[in-house]
Amino acid sequence: MKVPKSLINTLNKEQILLLATHISPDGDALGSCLALAEALVVLGKKVYIFDKDPVPELYQFMPGHKKCRSTLGNLLKKNPLLILLDCNSPERAALEGYTFSKSVVIDHHETESPFGDIRWVERTAAATGLMVFHLINALNIRITKSMATNMYTAIAVDTGTFRYSNTSSDVLRASAELIDAGAQPGIISEHLYERWKKNRFDLLSLCLGTLEIRDNMAMIHVTKDMFNKTGTVEADTENFANVPRMIDSVVISALIRETDNGRWKVSMRSKGQANVAKIAAAYGGGGHRNAAGFRIKTDLPLLKKTLFAAGKKILPKR
Amino acid sequence: MKVPKSLINTLNKEQILLLATHISPDGDALGSCLALAEALVVLGKKVYIFDKDPVPELYQFMPGHKKCRSTLGNLLKKNPLLILLDCNSPERAALEGYTFSKSVVIDHHETESPFGDIRWVERTAAATGLMVFHLINALNIRITKSMATNMYTAIAVDTGTFRYSNTSSDVLRASAELIDAGAQPGIISEHLYERWKKNRFDLLSLCLGTLEIRDNMAMIHVTKDMFNKTGTVEADTENFANVPRMIDSVVISALIRETDNGRWKVSMRSKGQANVAKIAAAYGGGGHRNAAGFRIKTDLPLLKKTLFAAGKKILPKR
Repeated sequence: MKVPKSLINTLNKEQILLLATHISPDGDALGSCLALAEALVVLGKKVYIFDKDPVPELYQFMPGHKKCRSTLGNLLKKNPLLILLDCNSPERAALEGYTFSKSVVIDHHETESPFGDIRWVERTAAATGLMVFHLINALNIRITKSMATNMYTAIAVDTGTFRYSNTSSDVLRASAELIDAGAQPGIISEHLYERWKKNRFDLLSLCLGTLEIRDNMAMIHVTKDMFNKTGTVEADTENFANVPRMIDSVVISALIRETDNGRWKVSMRSKGQANVAKIAAAYGGGGHRNAAGFRIKTDLPLLKKTLFAAGKKILPKR
Repeated sequence: MKVPKSLINTLNKEQILLLATHISPDGDALGSCLALAEALVVLGKKVYIFDKDPVPELYQFMPGHKKCRSTLGNLLKKNPLLILLDCNSPERAALEGYTFSKSVVIDHHETESPFGDIRWVERTAAATGLMVFHLINALNIRITKSMATNMYTAIAVDTGTFRYSNTSSDVLRASAELIDAGAQPGIISEHLYERWKKNRFDLLSLCLGTLEIRDNMAMIHVTKDMFNKTGTVEADTENFANVPRMIDSVVISALIRETDNGRWKVSMRSKGQANVAKIAAAYGGGGHRNAAGFRIKTDLPLLKKTLFAAGKKILPKR
C-alpha cells in the first residue's frame, strides 16, 4: 500500500486539522480517527475530531474516545484542513452545507464521490485503520500503545477479527506490529464480544425463536413488544442479522425490526454472489452486495411473504 | 521458538513414522498431524496418522483428513517412531498398553507427563500447529497450500480465530506466512463457523431460553427431550458452554446436558481468575482453570442449586 506523497506533504504543512468520520461510527471509523489524531498531535498539530453521533457504548473502551465532539462550534473560523476518514463525502459525515477551503479523503469504501482535494481511496484495503497504520509509518511517528489499540480495533472490527475474506497477510503483519506496540488482542476482543447486557442477550434469544427458513433464506424478527418485554432498543439488534448465516443452508438472512406501529426496518445479509442490494434498491434502500437494508410501512406476514419471494429471485441457481 | 536439534536429527534419520493425537480431536490436533505428515512425506518418509476417534464432520474440510486411521492393524510390527502431537501421554491418544521403542512428544499443554524420548513442550505456544509451522521451516520444507490450510486451521481453532489472549505477534506473523502459502482465512472461517445444521441452531435457541443468572454465574441446560425435539445429539452442544460468556456480568458459565435419565454432564467456562477446575475436581472431573467439567447422577434443580453455591465460592471477591 503506497501512501500518496501529496498527503504526507499536506499533513506536514497544515497546522489545524479537523478529522471527521461517518455517522453511526463503527470501530474502524473511530479507531482510524483516534489513532491519526494522536499521531498528528505528536507532529505538533492542533487536532479536532468530529462525529455527529455519540461514540457507542461498545467503543467507549477506545483510548481518547472522549476527544470526539458532536458539534463544530466556531471551529470553521480557524479554517482547518478537513480530513474525512472511513467515508468519502461530507454527507456521510453530516457535514453537508459547510465549506472547507481544503480537504483530504482517506477511505476504503467502494462507492466513491468526487469530494476532496487529496483523495486516497484504497478499495481493496480491509480497513481504513490499516491505511492509517501505513500513513503513520510513512510519517515516521512511533506507534504508542493507545494508537496501536485504536488501529487494532479498527482492523479487528472490519475483518470480523480476521474471519472475513479480506484478511490478507498484510492485515496480519500490520496487526502483529500493533501487538508489538502494545495492542492486547484478548482484551480488545473481550470488549467487542463479551460485554453484552443481559437484556440484549434475552432479546437475541427471543429473536432466534422467530427463525423461519425457506429455500435458502432465513428470516428473524423483533417486534415492539419484544423490545418492551426485554427493555431493549433498536441499537441492541446490532449484528443480529448475521447470526442465521451460521446455518450451512442459509445464503440470505434478513432481520426485520418494528420501528413504529406498522413501520419496519429490514437488514439483509448474504453469502457469496447473492446480491441483497438489489432487493434493498427495489424498496428505496441501499447497501452492498452482501449487506443491505430498507424501511417499509406494511404488516409483518405480508413483508415476510414479499421478502421470501424477492430472495428466491436473487438466489444463485444450484 | 527454538526447535530442538535432537528432534530435527531424529526426523531426518527415522523412515517409518506414526503420528498420533488425542481422542476427540480438535482443529489443532488434526491440523498439526496432517501438516507434519505431509511435510514428512516430502522428506521421503513412510507416514501413518492415528486417532482413535473419527474426524468430526466440522473438520472434514481439512486436506488429507481421510489419511487418519482409527486402528493400528499390524503397524507396530514395522517399529515406527511414535510422534505424539497436541498431547503428551499415550493415554490421551488411546495408545496405553502399546510399546514403542522410540517416541517424540510435540505439545503445548500445561499438564505434562514424563513420556517421550524427545520431548518438545512449549507451554506458552498458542497452538501445536504453530510449533509444527516452526518445525517445518526448520526442516527446510516448502509449505504447500494444503499444509498451510491445516496449520492455519490449527492456529485459528486454538486462538478462537485470534480472539483469545494467546494471540501473540508470532501467531499473526506465522499466520500471515500461511496466507502467503495459500491458506484462505475467509473459507476456513466459513467452514468453522457457518456450517451449522438447522437443528443444531434450533437446539441452541431452545438452550438459550433456559438461561439463568445468579451473582456472576450463568447456567443453561439441554434435556433429553430437547435433543429429541430437535433431532440432535450431545456433540451438537459443542461450544454452547461459551455462549453466555458474551454477557458482561457473567464470570462463570455452565452448560448442563442430560446424558441418560438422571445422569448429567456439566461443562463450565470462566473468565480470568475464577478456577472452575476446583468445582470439577470436587465432583471427580477435571480440566483447566477456565474450562472444566464433570459427570453426575442427580436431578436438575438440585444440580443447579449445588452449582450456583459452588460457583459463588470461587468467584473473585469484588
